[in-house]
Order: sequence, then C-alpha cells, then structure tokens
Amino acid sequence: MSSEQVLIGGKWREANAESTFHACDPARGETLPEAFPVSQWADCDEALDTAVAAFETLRGMPREAIARFLELYADRLEAASPEICQVAHRETALPVETRLAAGEMPRTCGQLRQAAEACRTASWTHPVIDTATNIRSCLAAIGPVAVFGPNNFPLAFGSISGGDFAAAIAAGNPVIAKANSMHPATTRLLAREAQLAADEAGLPSGTVQMIYRLKHEDGERLARDPRLAAIGYTGARSAGLKLKAAADSVGKPIYLELSSVNPTVILPGALSERAEAIADEFTGSCLMGTGQFCTNPGLVILCRGPQSDAFMEMVAGKFEAAPVGTLFSGSGQDGLAAAVETLAGAGAEVVCGGQAGGGNGFSYGNSLLKVNGDAFLADPETFQTEAFGNASLMVVVESVDQAVEVAGQLEGNLTGCLYTDTQGSDDEAYGRIAPVLRQRVGRLLNDKMPTGVAVSAAMNHGGPFPATGHPGFTAVGMPGAITRFAMLHCYDNVRPERLPSLLQDGNPDQVWRLVDGQWTQDDLKVELATS
Amino acid sequence: MSSEQVLIGGKWREANAESTFHACDPARGETLPEAFPVSQWADCDEALDTAVAAFETLRGMPREAIARFLELYADRLEAASPEICQVAHRETALPVETRLAAGEMPRTCGQLRQAAEACRTASWTHPVIDTATNIRSCLAAIGPVAVFGPNNFPLAFGSISGGDFAAAIAAGNPVIAKANSMHPATTRLLAREAQLAADEAGLPSGTVQMIYRLKHEDGERLARDPRLAAIGYTGARSAGLKLKAAADSVGKPIYLELSSVNPTVILPGALSERAEAIADEFTGSCLMGTGQFCTNPGLVILCRGPQSDAFMEMVAGKFEAAPVGTLFSGSGQDGLAAAVETLAGAGAEVVCGGQAGGGNGFSYGNSLLKVNGDAFLADPETFQTEAFGNASLMVVVESVDQAVEVAGQLEGNLTGCLYTDTQGSDDEAYGRIAPVLRQRVGRLLNDKMPTGVAVSAAMNHGGPFPATGHPGFTAVGMPGAITRFAMLHCYDNVRPERLPSLLQDGNPDQVWRLVDGQWTQDDLKVELATS
Repeated sequence: MSSEQVLIGGKWREANAESTFHACDPARGETLPEAFPVSQWADCDEALDTAVAAFETLRGMPREAIARFLELYADRLEAASPEICQVAHRETALPVETRLAAGEMPRTCGQLRQAAEACRTASWTHPVIDTATNIRSCLAAIGPVAVFGPNNFPLAFGSISGGDFAAAIAAGNPVIAKANSMHPATTRLLAREAQLAADEAGLPSGTVQMIYRLKHEDGERLARDPRLAAIGYTGARSAGLKLKAAADSVGKPIYLELSSVNPTVILPGALSERAEAIADEFTGSCLMGTGQFCTNPGLVILCRGPQSDAFMEMVAGKFEAAPVGTLFSGSGQDGLAAAVETLAGAGAEVVCGGQAGGGNGFSYGNSLLKVNGDAFLADPETFQTEAFGNASLMVVVESVDQAVEVAGQLEGNLTGCLYTDTQGSDDEAYGRIAPVLRQRVGRLLNDKMPTGVAVSAAMNHGGPFPATGHPGFTAVGMPGAITRFAMLHCYDNVRPERLPSLLQDGNPDQVWRLVDGQWTQDDLKVELATS
Repeated sequence: MSSEQVLIGGKWREANAESTFHACDPARGETLPEAFPVSQWADCDEALDTAVAAFETLRGMPREAIARFLELYADRLEAASPEICQVAHRETALPVETRLAAGEMPRTCGQLRQAAEACRTASWTHPVIDTATNIRSCLAAIGPVAVFGPNNFPLAFGSISGGDFAAAIAAGNPVIAKANSMHPATTRLLAREAQLAADEAGLPSGTVQMIYRLKHEDGERLARDPRLAAIGYTGARSAGLKLKAAADSVGKPIYLELSSVNPTVILPGALSERAEAIADEFTGSCLMGTGQFCTNPGLVILCRGPQSDAFMEMVAGKFEAAPVGTLFSGSGQDGLAAAVETLAGAGAEVVCGGQAGGGNGFSYGNSLLKVNGDAFLADPETFQTEAFGNASLMVVVESVDQAVEVAGQLEGNLTGCLYTDTQGSDDEAYGRIAPVLRQRVGRLLNDKMPTGVAVSAAMNHGGPFPATGHPGFTAVGMPGAITRFAMLHCYDNVRPERLPSLLQDGNPDQVWRLVDGQWTQDDLKVELATS
C-alpha cells in the first residue's frame, strides 16, 4: 500500500500500515489525493524503543544543544512558512494571510524560541537547595512524551510544532508526535523541518518522531506502554477521556485540553454603558476562525431586561451580517449541528442561524441561541454541551442570585469573563459572581473576550476538569507549560561532583534557585554542615 | 449503637452509623474497648456541605488567620503530647519516648509550623506577573480536601495532623480527615485539639472535620463527589488504587503514597571499605519501627562475590541479634508473612527470619531473603513485592551490567540509594547505574539509608507510580507539598482592585514573585502598558 512515509528513528520510511486515510479540503468539501498510513503497533513499538534510546543520550547533553534545536527549528519554519501555510490552508481552510502566515506561524516560532530560552536558562527547573540538610532538588526531564495535536491550530498546537511539543522538548524529552488526521500533510512538512533541525543541532535520532494515525486501541496501548513517560493531548473530549483512562490505569501523567464553553457574564451596567462595543467584541471573538477556538465564548450570561433583549438582537444582526466561515470538516459541521440540536431540543430558542451551509464547503450558519436561567438550571449539563464552531448560547437569568446559581453549576472551563461598567454599578454583582466563577476556570478576564491566548509566563491555558485533566498546570506559556513534562528529582547527601550542574554550589549560568527560602542567582556561599 | 462521636460542622456529634469497629493493642494482640462508628454516607454528605460553606468563608480570610491556626494547633499538640503519645502507643505499640514523644510529635509540630510560615509568606503560591500583557497568575486554594492517613505515622502523617493535612490547610482548603482504622482514638485526640485551635483562630466551622471509617463504596463515592476538590491518600496500594480510579473518573487530583521497596545498591568498593558500618546502618534502617516505614530499604542490590556473602552473613547475624519489634496489626503480620511467602515461593532463599512471632504481640522474625540476579530478572514484578515490615530482599547480581538491568526493571520508588567507596573504584559502576535508578525514584541518596525523611523545602517524598500517583510532587517538605492542593489562577486584564493582594502592584508583605522573569520581593514599579 503506497502512502506517505512516517518519521521514526531519525529516518523517513514506509509505515507498517494496513490501511490509509485521506485529508480533505474543507473549503471545497473534497478529499485530497495523498494517502497517509494508519500505522500498526509495530511503528509505535519501534518509535518507543528509539525514544528510550534517544532519551538516554539527551540526558547527558548540554541544555544548549536542545535550546539550539528549538531555535534552528523556528528559523527553518520561518523559511518554509509560505509552503507550510499553503498546505495548511488547503487542509484547514484557514486563511493564509490573516491567520496562518501572519498569526499562527509567528506564534509558533515565538513559542519555540521562548521554550529555547527557558531551556537555556533552566527557568522551568525550580532548583531548591536546603543547606541545613544538604538536600537539593529540581525538576528534570520525565522521559519520552507522546503528543496528540488538535485540529484547530495546525501549527501553534501542532503535535510536532506546538506548545506541548516545545514544552516536552525543552524539558529534555523525546517526542512521539501523532498528527491530527485533518492536516497530515501540514504535519509532514513540520516534521521534515523538525528532523532537519534536530540533525543540525546534533540531537540523537528519535528525539523527534511522527506518525500519522493509529487505531484507537493502539493509541490506548501507547498510553499504557511503560516506555512512554507522559502524554499531551488536545482535542475532542471522548477520545481524550479514553487516553486518560489508559494513562491513569498505569499512573502516567497525561495533560489534556478537552473542551470549554468559556462562560462570559455581561452585567447590566456594562450593557448600559457600551452595548454596541461589547456586541462587536463578542461577535468578533465568537466568529473568529469560524468559532473553532478552545476559548470561544460559547456561553453568555445576561440579566433579564430590555437591555439584554436589545443586546441579543444587536448580536443576532451582526451574526447575520457576518460572512459564514468554513469549518474544518464534515464531522465538525455535523458535530456543530448536533450540538445546536441538543441545545434546542432541551429548550433553547434559536435566535439566528441553526442551519447547515451558508459558507464555502463545510459550514453552518452563525448561530445564536437563548435560554432562560430556570431552564438552564433544570438541566445544566445539557446546556453546557459544547457547540464547537460559530455558535453561542445566551443564558438570560432573572437576577444576580440566579447568575450566581448558574455559575455554581458550571463545569471546569479554560476561561471565564465578566464585563462590568466603569462607574461601579456592577461591582456588587461582580463581587458575588466572580468568586464562584473563579474556582471553575483557569483564566479570569475582565472586560475582554477570552479568545487570544497570549504566550505569557503568567498565562494559564488550563482549568478544572473537564477543560483539562489537572487544574494546576497550563498548556500555554513558558516556562510553566514545561513543568508538565517533568519529574521531581531530589538528591540527598549526593556527592558534589555527582550532582547535576544546576544543583552544584557554583552557579556560573546564574540560574534562579531557591536557596534556604530565598530566590537567588548567586553561587552557593554557605558552608555546608554535611558532606 | 453507642460509639465515639465524629467531628462534623464544627461539632462533635453521634455518627450516622450502622456498625462500629474497634482498634487493637498490637503489643498484646488485644481488642481495645472503645467502639468507633463506621459512618454512613449521610456523614460524608453533611461534611461535604459544611466544607463547601467553610471554603467560601476561608477564601475571604487573611492568610494570617490560617497561619495562626496552624501554630495554635502545634502549641496545643505539644501541651497535649503526653496524653496523645500514650494513646498512640496503645494503638500502635510505637515506643512513647524514643519514637512518639521525642520524634514524631516534634516532627508533626514542626511541620505544622513550617506550613504556617509558608502560608504567611505565601511562598507556595508562585505568583507570576507579566507586565507586557498585564497577565498575572498564582496558585490558589483548590477547595475541600479529603485526607486518608496511613497506619505507620499516627501523628506526622495522620489525617488531621500530618503533612497532607498541614499542606491542604496552608493552601486555604478545608479538610475532611478519614482516620486510619488502626488508631482512631489517637485521631480523636488530634481532632479535638485541631477543632479547639480552629475555634480559637476564628476559622469557619467545618474547616477541620473528622470521621473514623467508611464503607469502601462510600469512600469511592466521596472521591467522586463534585463538592470535593482533591484527595491526599497514604496507605496500602489496593485501597489507594480504588480511590484513584474513582477520582480519575471525574478528573480530580489525587495524591497518593502507595508502596516502595526503596532499592539500595551497595557496590563492591564500599563493601571492601566499610562493610561493617554499612551493615549496621542497613540493619538500623531496616528494623527501625519494625520496618514499617515507607522508605524502608526492602531491596538491596549486591554484586556476587565473597564480600557480598560476608556482608549478608553479617547482616543476618545482626538481624538475629536484634530484638523483634511489634507490628501494627494482625493483618500487618499476615501481610508480611504472605509477602515473604510470595518471595520465597518465587525462588528467594530465606537467610534468616521467615516465621511469625518472636516479639510482643503481632510480630514476625527479622527477615533477610536473597535471590540471584537471573532469577530476579525472570520475574521482576514478583520480586518487587513489598514486604512491609522488618524484612528485606538481597538481589545478588553477576555484574554491573546485570545491576543496570535490574535497575531498569524497577517500578517507581520513593527512594534509591547507592553506596560507593571513597577511592573511586565504584565510580564507573555508579555512572552506569545511577542514571537508570534516577528516573525510577523521587529521592536519590549516596552513602545514606533512605529512612529519615527530613522536612526540608528540597525534599522529595514522592516518585513515579506506583510509589505515588504523580512524579512531579512531594508529600513532605514545605512549601512544595502545599502546591498539590492548589489550582492555577490566572487574571487577564482584571482591574487592579479586584486582584488578589498577592498579585497587586504593591507588595507590602514582600512575597517572592516572578516579575518578567526575575524573582523579586519588590513592589511592581514598571508602568503598565494596559489598564
């Protein structure tokens, strides 16, 4: 069976495949010609062996080599950007200029360079030295990591180019990337550049590996395999939960990003003050990228009253006036339709949209739904069904009390927003709703829509389950994201020359270390009591 | 049914119980008179509601109140130490003077005070400020935490007094403590002091709650309940894995400490140099507390040769000469006997011990077993059966190659030790074995036995599964242990006055914060670009 080659053990080679699959051009709804292999277990098996060997070598290499790889890779991506963005456009229908070339590619390269910097400065390692006991510890690479990337960011969250990849590599781990089946050709190009950069940086074969697709049972077997140390997964909840169950069964860290409706509370004072501006912001945020963002504002909480009615009407007008974008796939279109049906079936009213079509290829009308607070509270689970795409549900509550109650029923989400006026009339409501929302989201915003996730050291692109699998970690932002792919290494009475350089008395690289409770970049000057 | 009262909602009251249980005096093998209740779900239900309410109040309280509670509690424990240690002695047979009063109680109080200090200085919160984007984040309390304590440290790991308790409280979470069934009367006294201290510090009712025992299905229901935010569990692997499965199914953080054989490699040069000293160290470490330590050296790797034979003979002599201690329970004695049988059944030779009895009450002879490397490698899983108590298995390998191979088959452990000589003859072997061992243990030691877990900021009392449930966290040592019971809170464009004090521009408490990549205790002086 002739199909594209996989990258295993530093070589492009034929896959062990029983079947193939094809990607699709979503703007035309047409199957693309290249055949990609569905790998059999033999490919995973070899990739795992190679990753284990690569890890042994990587552990002995200077941080600089890994940092250099990340930078060379970013340089290569920039050079190959026109080709990559063209292919990505074909597979995703995301616009080349406004999104891929000018947005996602610079973000991707910036992220790789931030990871390189974090690697070089060891800023993610959190070294701790206790001179009284001569115990020292730091975070260290965990071992081979598998990364499963989502459909919605072929570059910035790509399995061999995105945040999880950069983080896992920066920590010193080899990565086995599983391409998203919707953009295999894009992933192939990214993997090509990654491998060339890895060779140039002198990293061991198998530091970066890529396969296109696996049978579900092989994915779960991979998750359970003792050679694999950790997993990063961004994508649909159902598949993610299966991988999580497999990883959990063997006590393996798995970092997930699954789903989020990103509740946005718009309080009455804010609507009085600037309804039109907020409607514009909301429309832009909700329809951007045809709404296919993890942080898409999919659930809006409004207080009942003429202002809210007018606001919804205004938004509906803007939704109807806006072009209908293309969705990534037929299954995406079907999924969006099914979610809207679920919401409507539970009693939500379709204010606008609610029908397939209207754009190029796979598409679905820009959709606004509404439901009152009582109905939401009667079935909060159903009304939190994620409608992934250009759709949002407005929940119209009776009172601030009911807004608090609705907030209290929210599942874990990536973000939560509150819009308030500038004169203080919403402050009391804010004070009651914000604490409840706070515990249910990773990132709390004021007067700002949730889309646009800055790659910042202070970012939390995370949140309680089911938004992610652990509320203590972020998937975006260096150095924080790197700590996911790490284990804590403690050294007790270990002879000085055997300590990792980060924990030795001298600190020539001026790494930030926590010495006896004080952060410092200095050498260790205290006379040790022991050893 | 008359039985001891549970502590729920700030009050001691009768439990909702269908049955009762009794603890045992292990030194006499006698059932103790007090009846303790096995709570029905109604007790959990009420404790959860109260904990949720307590958390809402706690979140608005100053850190100082929580710190003060921890210190008042420590003071109270010291004052009540004679009574508590006496009762703990009766339930555990641990000696009052050498262990409980002079060792575990000071450790417990010291731990509570370290947690108070970490709470006051917010040293666990890791505040990050990115001035370019005005995004700010920190770790924050996660919500109500259930703590299940182990049998082997009634005070220092106790469910309402130990490290998990102190860490969960220091983060600002209410705790529902599940007493260990082997020392309920001790736990009752601890809870009494905790509640008095909580009242004195003005903490809300339900900040500290305690129940004695649950049916297994109710324990799992508790783990799944959405009102509970996280779990700390230290104890047997089988029960821990059931709780883990329940918590995992709803994406809830659970921190486990399950089992560990604490591999200890003693290289030939070290034996040539100081066999007798090492034999003394090993014997002390292995028999201390009748071997009932999480970090008991249960697996020793030696290289074949006359020195190793002599060493084993020496250790066997010391084991036989040492008094046989009392085990915590009949089930502990049976469990140890079963583990020794499993090891012997798989082909290990019993060098000494291997029979029940020999000490007061529940006891089992100080036991040394040995097996050769080939046999170990033929069935590594069975030979890593934890024999919890005064027993250890010596694995005699053919060569350094085989030692590396054995190390490569080890499960995740809390600790791993290497003994080497001081002249360098073991250095090459160290260089080959240590990296393999390193990835499999939380704490790596040189020339030191693993028992004795300092409460140090640099400690890692943790390690890969199945030693724990996540290799990135420690259960001992402040402030690290506190971060387990936390979630990451990010603030994006949130108005200054609405930020938590930790993240505001001013920093009057001189909290260490990571501002634009630099750790500082200063106020934020940079002019912000936004808001």
